[in-house]
Amino acid sequence: MSIKFSTSTDNFAVNYNDITVAANRLSSVAHHTPVITSTTVDKLTNCEVFFKCENLQRTGSFKFRGAYNALSQLSETQKQSGVLTYSLGNHAQAIALAGKLLNIPTTIVMPNNAPKVKQSATHGYGAEIIFHDINEISREKLTQKIAQERGSTIIPGYDHPDIIAGQGVTALELIREVGSLDLLLVSCGGGGLLSGCAIAAKKLLPNCSVIGVEPENADDATRSFDSKTLQTVDNPNTIADGARTPSLGKLNFPIVLNYVDDMVTVSESAILRTMYFMWERMKLVIEPTGTLAAAALLEGIVKASDLRVGIIISGGNVDLKEVGELFNRI
Amino acid sequence: MSIKFSTSTDNFAVNYNDITVAANRLSSVAHHTPVITSTTVDKLTNCEVFFKCENLQRTGSFKFRGAYNALSQLSETQKQSGVLTYSLGNHAQAIALAGKLLNIPTTIVMPNNAPKVKQSATHGYGAEIIFHDINEISREKLTQKIAQERGSTIIPGYDHPDIIAGQGVTALELIREVGSLDLLLVSCGGGGLLSGCAIAAKKLLPNCSVIGVEPENADDATRSFDSKTLQTVDNPNTIADGARTPSLGKLNFPIVLNYVDDMVTVSESAILRTMYFMWERMKLVIEPTGTLAAAALLEGIVKASDLRVGIIISGGNVDLKEVGELFNRI
Repeated sequence: MSIKFSTSTDNFAVNYNDITVAANRLSSVAHHTPVITSTTVDKLTNCEVFFKCENLQRTGSFKFRGAYNALSQLSETQKQSGVLTYSLGNHAQAIALAGKLLNIPTTIVMPNNAPKVKQSATHGYGAEIIFHDINEISREKLTQKIAQERGSTIIPGYDHPDIIAGQGVTALELIREVGSLDLLLVSCGGGGLLSGCAIAAKKLLPNCSVIGVEPENADDATRSFDSKTLQTVDNPNTIADGARTPSLGKLNFPIVLNYVDDMVTVSESAILRTMYFMWERMKLVIEPTGTLAAAALLEGIVKASDLRVGIIISGGNVDLKEVGELFNRI
Repeated sequence: MSIKFSTSTDNFAVNYNDITVAANRLSSVAHHTPVITSTTVDKLTNCEVFFKCENLQRTGSFKFRGAYNALSQLSETQKQSGVLTYSLGNHAQAIALAGKLLNIPTTIVMPNNAPKVKQSATHGYGAEIIFHDINEISREKLTQKIAQERGSTIIPGYDHPDIIAGQGVTALELIREVGSLDLLLVSCGGGGLLSGCAIAAKKLLPNCSVIGVEPENADDATRSFDSKTLQTVDNPNTIADGARTPSLGKLNFPIVLNYVDDMVTVSESAILRTMYFMWERMKLVIEPTGTLAAAALLEGIVKASDLRVGIIISGGNVDLKEVGELFNRI
């Protein structure tokens, strides 16, 4: 008979303890983001809704938590050789700032169609950017090639234990602040935020349902969840650029399968309506991906009544000069 | 020898005690709005800056505090006869919601050039709106005429003790939360927010400088402050629509003279730049008037270094469909 650890969480890349350790690591560096409530939302939904505002996190998204948690644990040799990543935008900014704070050189491989505001912010934090034509070479291959040439460490955007643990601090903070929740809604791209938050939520509140939300046009995680087989999507056409990831991470997928109760999708028009509503009524600048979780509730896709609901607003990096045109589509 | 009360505050329409009583009255009705900090702002200004986010207050501005404080103290007869006010927008919404919560009929005389978003929100809260052509009849005359006809009580936007006391709760909450401040910056239209906040700040922190900020194009309060004589401005051309008031209120003026340390003005382009900066970096939807206090610091009009600075973000009601055009002017 083989010796096995007794806790089921040992099957996964990350456990609850990793998240509490990450929380301590982040406590003096990341913002303890505010939790905001809205009388209007509570009345509309007949629920008590708590919005965890990661759009108010440093670099404008939750990604800073994972990035700092990962980079701060590198060896001195790794730090000196620098860090490399590929990113659609928010992870890039997060790695760039974490690198700056920890004095680690950072290089970002970024698709040439990434929002300009995310490009310039990444550059502003001092990272080197290498643009990548998504039609020419896979970003993984390009990144690996550069990493080999430079001897730098690749820190991917979601498929990494320290990234997942860092993102999980978001739910940990929310629950520590507001107490019991019946439902937690989390946006999902590669599943870093969702898997981390699900581990924290299920440990602290075993009866809290955790539901992941992604765009209809990038529904790979929902299909993966339903079929229990990792599905992919190719350069999906969604306004929610943070969810244009090709699939759940290999480490994230089993965590999502084990800890998440359901996955749902929202349409492009639902994302836009929710974004407008949240800007207008809640006075928060939220990027399309950041509205996914709220859209699931406000658009009635997740049925809820008389519940205490936590919603993660994942980020707020959006090009303000283009937003008037966007809202005039409604 | 005549008998006089010994405290100098008895010369004014409002004292600190009125503000603490208002705070209790509002505690279960108004939002205790969050205080937000920004590493970027702290670095840029070499100060520790605390933003009190009244854009996240109910109805999207601090005005709800004063409106509810005033309406909740009316007699039963007054409540039944209804309340009437004239407003550029935010006070209208505030009166409308306070009336709805307290079951008091409300009527708003509003200029026909008030922002549409403020018109529709006021209507949405259930108030009757009477539009007023600013070139035809003075709003005061029109309001008094209607009040006489209907027997309703006029609650003006700033020139009223209960309004001033309610708005003062904003600074009270900020200081109770963050502790000592060296400087408090407050936007100024009719002076309701500024006078209330100055009373609270000077009582709790006698060494804290209180500075009022208004648009260059609507600089009546600054001229009044400097000349110690009430000055007016006629329908000023400023993007900061909340500061298009004709003068400081008669009750507010002596309070401003006594409790406020200085008044400064900011240009239209400074307002717009600050608004863009705060939306982009702080992820908050803030109306032009709501950025006045921050503009004074960020644009270097108020010189500050190594200080703890409180900034009131007064409101966030802005037409999102027009904001793209606005930001493309920068």
